[in-house]
Amino acid sequence: MTYFNNISNIKYEGSNSTNPYAFKFYNPEETVGGKTMEDQLRFSVAYWHTFTEDLSDPFGAGTAIRPWDRYDGMDRAKARVDAAFELFEKLNVPYFAFHDVDIAPEGSNLRESNQNIDAIVAMIKDYMKDSKTKLLWNTVNNFTHPRFVHGAGSSNNADVFAYAAAKVKKGLEVGRELGAENYVFWGGREGYETLLNTDMKRELDHLGRFFHMAVDYAKEIGFGAQFLIEPKPKEPTTHQYDFDVASGYAFLQRYGLQDDFKFNIEANHATLAGHTFEHELRYARVNNILGSVDANQGHPLLGWDTDEFPTDLYATTLAMYEILKNGGLGSGGLNFDAKVRRGSFTPEDLVHAHIAGMDSFAVGLKVAQRLIDDQVFDKVVAERYSSFDTGIGKAVEDGTADFYQLEQHALSLGGIQNESGRLEQIKATINQYLLKEYAGV
Amino acid sequence: MTYFNNISNIKYEGSNSTNPYAFKFYNPEETVGGKTMEDQLRFSVAYWHTFTEDLSDPFGAGTAIRPWDRYDGMDRAKARVDAAFELFEKLNVPYFAFHDVDIAPEGSNLRESNQNIDAIVAMIKDYMKDSKTKLLWNTVNNFTHPRFVHGAGSSNNADVFAYAAAKVKKGLEVGRELGAENYVFWGGREGYETLLNTDMKRELDHLGRFFHMAVDYAKEIGFGAQFLIEPKPKEPTTHQYDFDVASGYAFLQRYGLQDDFKFNIEANHATLAGHTFEHELRYARVNNILGSVDANQGHPLLGWDTDEFPTDLYATTLAMYEILKNGGLGSGGLNFDAKVRRGSFTPEDLVHAHIAGMDSFAVGLKVAQRLIDDQVFDKVVAERYSSFDTGIGKAVEDGTADFYQLEQHALSLGGIQNESGRLEQIKATINQYLLKEYAGV
Amino acid sequence: MTYFNNISNIKYEGSNSTNPYAFKFYNPEETVGGKTMEDQLRFSVAYWHTFTEDLSDPFGAGTAIRPWDRYDGMDRAKARVDAAFELFEKLNVPYFAFHDVDIAPEGSNLRESNQNIDAIVAMIKDYMKDSKTKLLWNTVNNFTHPRFVHGAGSSNNADVFAYAAAKVKKGLEVGRELGAENYVFWGGREGYETLLNTDMKRELDHLGRFFHMAVDYAKEIGFGAQFLIEPKPKEPTTHQYDFDVASGYAFLQRYGLQDDFKFNIEANHATLAGHTFEHELRYARVNNILGSVDANQGHPLLGWDTDEFPTDLYATTLAMYEILKNGGLGSGGLNFDAKVRRGSFTPEDLVHAHIAGMDSFAVGLKVAQRLIDDQVFDKVVAERYSSFDTGIGKAVEDGTADFYQLEQHALSLGGIQNESGRLEQIKATINQYLLKEYAGV
Amino acid sequence: MTYFNNISNIKYEGSNSTNPYAFKFYNPEETVGGKTMEDQLRFSVAYWHTFTEDLSDPFGAGTAIRPWDRYDGMDRAKARVDAAFELFEKLNVPYFAFHDVDIAPEGSNLRESNQNIDAIVAMIKDYMKDSKTKLLWNTVNNFTHPRFVHGAGSSNNADVFAYAAAKVKKGLEVGRELGAENYVFWGGREGYETLLNTDMKRELDHLGRFFHMAVDYAKEIGFGAQFLIEPKPKEPTTHQYDFDVASGYAFLQRYGLQDDFKFNIEANHATLAGHTFEHELRYARVNNILGSVDANQGHPLLGWDTDEFPTDLYATTLAMYEILKNGGLGSGGLNFDAKVRRGSFTPEDLVHAHIAGMDSFAVGLKVAQRLIDDQVFDKVVAERYSSFDTGIGKAVEDGTADFYQLEQHALSLGGIQNESGRLEQIKATINQYLLKEYAGV
Ligand SMILES: [Co+2]
Ligand SMILES: [Co+2]
Ligand SMILES: [Co+2]
Ligand SMILES: [Co+2]
Ligand SMILES: [Co+2]
Ligand SMILES: [Co+2]
Ligand SMILES: [Co+2]
Ligand SMILES: [Co+2]
Repeated sequence: MTYFNNISNIKYEGSNSTNPYAFKFYNPEETVGGKTMEDQLRFSVAYWHTFTEDLSDPFGAGTAIRPWDRYDGMDRAKARVDAAFELFEKLNVPYFAFHDVDIAPEGSNLRESNQNIDAIVAMIKDYMKDSKTKLLWNTVNNFTHPRFVHGAGSSNNADVFAYAAAKVKKGLEVGRELGAENYVFWGGREGYETLLNTDMKRELDHLGRFFHMAVDYAKEIGFGAQFLIEPKPKEPTTHQYDFDVASGYAFLQRYGLQDDFKFNIEANHATLAGHTFEHELRYARVNNILGSVDANQGHPLLGWDTDEFPTDLYATTLAMYEILKNGGLGSGGLNFDAKVRRGSFTPEDLVHAHIAGMDSFAVGLKVAQRLIDDQVFDKVVAERYSSFDTGIGKAVEDGTADFYQLEQHALSLGGIQNESGRLEQIKATINQYLLKEYAGV
Repeated sequence: MTYFNNISNIKYEGSNSTNPYAFKFYNPEETVGGKTMEDQLRFSVAYWHTFTEDLSDPFGAGTAIRPWDRYDGMDRAKARVDAAFELFEKLNVPYFAFHDVDIAPEGSNLRESNQNIDAIVAMIKDYMKDSKTKLLWNTVNNFTHPRFVHGAGSSNNADVFAYAAAKVKKGLEVGRELGAENYVFWGGREGYETLLNTDMKRELDHLGRFFHMAVDYAKEIGFGAQFLIEPKPKEPTTHQYDFDVASGYAFLQRYGLQDDFKFNIEANHATLAGHTFEHELRYARVNNILGSVDANQGHPLLGWDTDEFPTDLYATTLAMYEILKNGGLGSGGLNFDAKVRRGSFTPEDLVHAHIAGMDSFAVGLKVAQRLIDDQVFDKVVAERYSSFDTGIGKAVEDGTADFYQLEQHALSLGGIQNESGRLEQIKATINQYLLKEYAGV
Repeated sequence: MTYFNNISNIKYEGSNSTNPYAFKFYNPEETVGGKTMEDQLRFSVAYWHTFTEDLSDPFGAGTAIRPWDRYDGMDRAKARVDAAFELFEKLNVPYFAFHDVDIAPEGSNLRESNQNIDAIVAMIKDYMKDSKTKLLWNTVNNFTHPRFVHGAGSSNNADVFAYAAAKVKKGLEVGRELGAENYVFWGGREGYETLLNTDMKRELDHLGRFFHMAVDYAKEIGFGAQFLIEPKPKEPTTHQYDFDVASGYAFLQRYGLQDDFKFNIEANHATLAGHTFEHELRYARVNNILGSVDANQGHPLLGWDTDEFPTDLYATTLAMYEILKNGGLGSGGLNFDAKVRRGSFTPEDLVHAHIAGMDSFAVGLKVAQRLIDDQVFDKVVAERYSSFDTGIGKAVEDGTADFYQLEQHALSLGGIQNESGRLEQIKATINQYLLKEYAGV
Repeated sequence: MTYFNNISNIKYEGSNSTNPYAFKFYNPEETVGGKTMEDQLRFSVAYWHTFTEDLSDPFGAGTAIRPWDRYDGMDRAKARVDAAFELFEKLNVPYFAFHDVDIAPEGSNLRESNQNIDAIVAMIKDYMKDSKTKLLWNTVNNFTHPRFVHGAGSSNNADVFAYAAAKVKKGLEVGRELGAENYVFWGGREGYETLLNTDMKRELDHLGRFFHMAVDYAKEIGFGAQFLIEPKPKEPTTHQYDFDVASGYAFLQRYGLQDDFKFNIEANHATLAGHTFEHELRYARVNNILGSVDANQGHPLLGWDTDEFPTDLYATTLAMYEILKNGGLGSGGLNFDAKVRRGSFTPEDLVHAHIAGMDSFAVGLKVAQRLIDDQVFDKVVAERYSSFDTGIGKAVEDGTADFYQLEQHALSLGGIQNESGRLEQIKATINQYLLKEYAGV
């Protein structure tokens, strides 16, 4: 059974193509920075937004027209697998990602749910034998069902904690079965609606235990995937404990988990937390905890997670800059945790949206690589901080200076000379790089 | 006396130039959309940010290094005029704009202040004889001095109201003297700190009177400039009455002023009000009240007016699209109400920043014109609304339909077919246009 | 059939009561400001949040436990009516409000939907014969169904426009049938997702036509309810045309509708638009367009409409201050457009929440009345603006002053003396009034 | 020389007093929770906002009328000390706090600046001999002077780093000299304007070194004050490294500083970071890093630091709840890092504002203590989490459970029963406590 019948395999046709069903910038085999674009970008399709999502919003019923919705229950779940691997092939993406409930409906109890998962996992495994598309990461949805109303690993209800743990246990087994390269924790309900009825200390301690048990179990079953925490500041909760990378990092250190986790950074979650996407990437990079990326974008004037497909070339350029500087994402990738707009309700829009996102990151990659090759930022930064390469600055970095020496140095200064940061010039340079990249220069 | 001695006249050198003191995209003589770039863009330098601003912020003293600051009082004011016309020529800008206090220091009373203004206006007028640079608009600063602590035209103090009126009277005379093409009202203190001690009705009525008197006086002295209101939602006030274009338009209609005013739309004020720049432009355009533009940009994560030089090519493209669709700005222009960052404190940064802004709007102009030439949006829009070109839709537009007919039509419908809005595809198309513009395609 | 079996009629027991099922502050028969609390506050229960809402959110399925959900379709609709009038009586509220789809499920076509409505309206009308509870307002939901994906009165699809009109036509008939005192328009989809595919002018013109037709039809059928527009800046749209009261007022004046509409102001919509609740009320009051109130509150740190029950006594006090100063709400009332939190999922929580809201507004009423009786703000304001009662100030207000006279006055001033606004003292005074109200002073 | 000549010592007169120069709620000798109000609240006057601040804003010159401004330079500095101790006595506050530049003007070089400081410190020390008012904390201002344009401890310029260190060295010596109970670090410029020219890793490493040197030097000179970091997310920087308590805590752990620092939490900084005030206090409390409080409030609709005097009784109640639960603030206190509004420009407003803040926290203290005495939240919380007191929940907390056991438990569950969080009822209860506190009940 096929579902995208009008769509052929999407090919690279170059920047002048007027074919809406072609890549204009993403050329998987083209080498950039010593690797193919495919290997650099490691694109992943998000199962939930592309195959499960109905495009409902808080004020409206779903608008999505999805041919597999003619089925119900497990039949629909199977149809979605068919559709998924068809689209993976047509988009030529190397990865996908899912939550347990994306691929299989929950049963009337945990045992049944697990059986449903097993059936679909077997089907996916079968598909994967003949497909290039691998599992970037999986996770479990411990937030949608009403049982998680007060949290999962941070629920006040020990039964819910146990249920959540059992779901993660299954998730780890599924990840091992399908060769997932990472395993993600997004704690959609791990936070609070109000402090007034919340025991924050007890909840954080429980979460610490929860993660330690997950680490232990993965080791026990030989599942070697990289564990990732995906921060988000709020929504659906009023406050989520993993507010941003920094707060997650504080938690990991506090509970002795810093060696077992990295972060999955979502652009829209960054901006909801009051940070730029590149800030979260940079902060993770310099602390060596950058794991993977949920590639999307938010609307700067809206206060909720819009999960738009990424098309802002400034954002893709600066993101790819951080990723290249990180030496790539390792086992991570660029997962399109992005949904088409409610008004883009046809199956064709799913294809347009992925092309838009993949082309945008391809441009970002090329511009970022050129900025690195030409040392555009590197030269600026090396020059700006050069006073720490010698003399009193070097003594600070070497750890040999103390307040006495620094005071002596300060007293000896005639005047202090700062240099302009040249931000406006730098921004003009980025524009020039962006526009020149395809100018054949 | 010259002040930008290391800077030659800035020339267009094309997109491959590595000369930081050259335009890469702004070519004033190049024709786009039937007019030269210079005539389309009508750039203006803002006197306050470029010649008066010291780059202080609420937590720091000024950092700006300005060679004319070696002088004081009227001597400094004159040095600024020298510097200004030197820079206007080197940047080759056709317009500038100022507040009264930007050009001349306040004296110890109104009479002295006016004398200071007169002296500088004479000097400016003299310069203008030999300069191509004209006055886009002038205005008076009725917000900095402590007397305006509770407002100007909306002050609770009638003396302050009178003083503000006297300053505007002088401003109108100055505008006539220098041939200003517009006169701007930004009511920085026309709002409230708190409703608890505010008589909103009385304040709005006073403002209405204030504007009527200004209109009357301009007519009386034969000053034919377009009057412009510049909305801003807040800062320094908690709430400014001209929150956005819509609230300003409500006020104008309420007080019978709608035929005498258009709007000066600032990008950063738009975003502080929760609107995109292009929204404010579009809203003004469709209501025929788009007058002029304060060309800058804000930081989407900061809650105050950063007045950055505009470098976002998406914003410049969408802004120029609205302006071109408006048939241009008439007597208005693109005024750089923008300041270099506090860390960009050298005179050279003023040049870099203007080049960045002018190049960015030049790119926006060319991309927008291409989008119009190719009817990219026009085709989408015409098709989307075509159901109103005939039948029941046309009856609605013609005003012949009523609820009975519409109900009959609705009852007769089998099902309703909507079409996808195709947002993701449109965004990809914009990226393609942006990148192709300089690809020599 | 009854649904709140454990709940007796809620009585006023005074501020020391520890009975969770009692009013501590709302005493309907107590006279405040010359009217009973019941007549001053005119409380209304929102049918949708209390009887239809399932407490789902974008990341979670509904948690609400509602005994009437054991039924389906029209049976559930009827059970809801039973539950509603039981709760109205137990809460002793004088009003309720609904959308068409709250009370009756949509049928497979418009005709069927209308039949469903007719059946339930008849049942409601029957209940109303024996109930004190009247219909504050009704409206129709032109935003949830997928057909409204691109708008209703502003849809690009003329069929959808017609369908929306037919629903409003029916809504007006229903309002007349049940004696609604107002009719509300909240344009949840009347705005845009993106300007890129939007013809704003055509959409606004269509909306103008839509409202005129509604006014005409109401007159024709003799439905004399006050028409109300309920502004909201965004959500679900990226931008809603009725962003706030000011933008709605601009629209009404632009399309000649200003005499036919007032505004229904929702607290949470105000804050989403960047305004305080009291700002929107004040702005409407001084422009004589304050119609009714959706009494709720938002979370100041969340960027979406949380529609919380109102418990902030500062907000209720300042709101009641504006309402009392308006001479009351006329045909309007305080409608609890508020939902219990997702974690407050029992039927009892509906009762607790309404008690919380009613008590909070009762406190606000009493404190506001005391502030008015003692002329706390009035004295401050009268004194602050007294310079406009005589002399040049009076000439301004009388319209006899012009810029010449004002300049003469300004030139004659020795120095300008402003008085402190005393904000901190005023805030302390409000606290004292709040705490003293129940101190038996 | 005295400056507040019209103001007598402010006395407690009770909640019915109409004397604007009296405390209505703050009775320093009254015992609440086993200590006097004075000892519980430990109020501190902020030198900068009360004696140095001129009430300028980014769009306006200073409005403050301060009798000591008739002097200049060191004379003004000395006059401020006179004024300060006069006001401390009249307000009867036990603490004050300052930055180096608040008390003494900078000289033409570091040596001169230090001499100025020494002179004023001697004068302050002299005053303190006869005053009850002690130094809560001191700090140095490493953000106002242009030399700090690119940061202080995180500056790219090693000279600036040295200068900043020398200033902190002096600050620690001053703190020891005056018996400061804490020493505060607010890194107003420790962050970045843009990532494009920033080496985040090098800057963070430098900051880590800076703090270690400060710790070492304080030990060396025997200055035993508690070190405090004051987080703020942004302003004046685009991004400040100590964004919030969590990010500061991540940094401290990363650089091995967690045992040497606690946090000084400012309410307005919390809300700018997207957190409630009580969230930051709670997070610090449960991690045992709550040190002191900058008691102020922000405006929820404004995006900058308004530093208003705290008058919101909900905020003061919830803050005092956290503080009481923390067993008090130890060496910390409630420092009014708050400024009168620009329109409240008289010396009297300084008194009104402090009375407003002190009364508001006094009410908060009493209501919070009553909530604790009655175990209002404690009972709710204990009940909510009771499933972790026994069985599988206890096994989780004891660290004996693993994923196998949890899965077994989950599989054995028939259904999961959650309890309502009862948020609306809790909020009504808080209102009742607030209003009852002074009702003589
Ligand atoms: Co994500
Ligand atoms: Co997201
Ligand atoms: Co402007
Ligand atoms: Co601005
Ligand atoms: Co509402
Ligand atoms: Co709402
Ligand atoms: Co502070
Ligand atoms: Co602050």
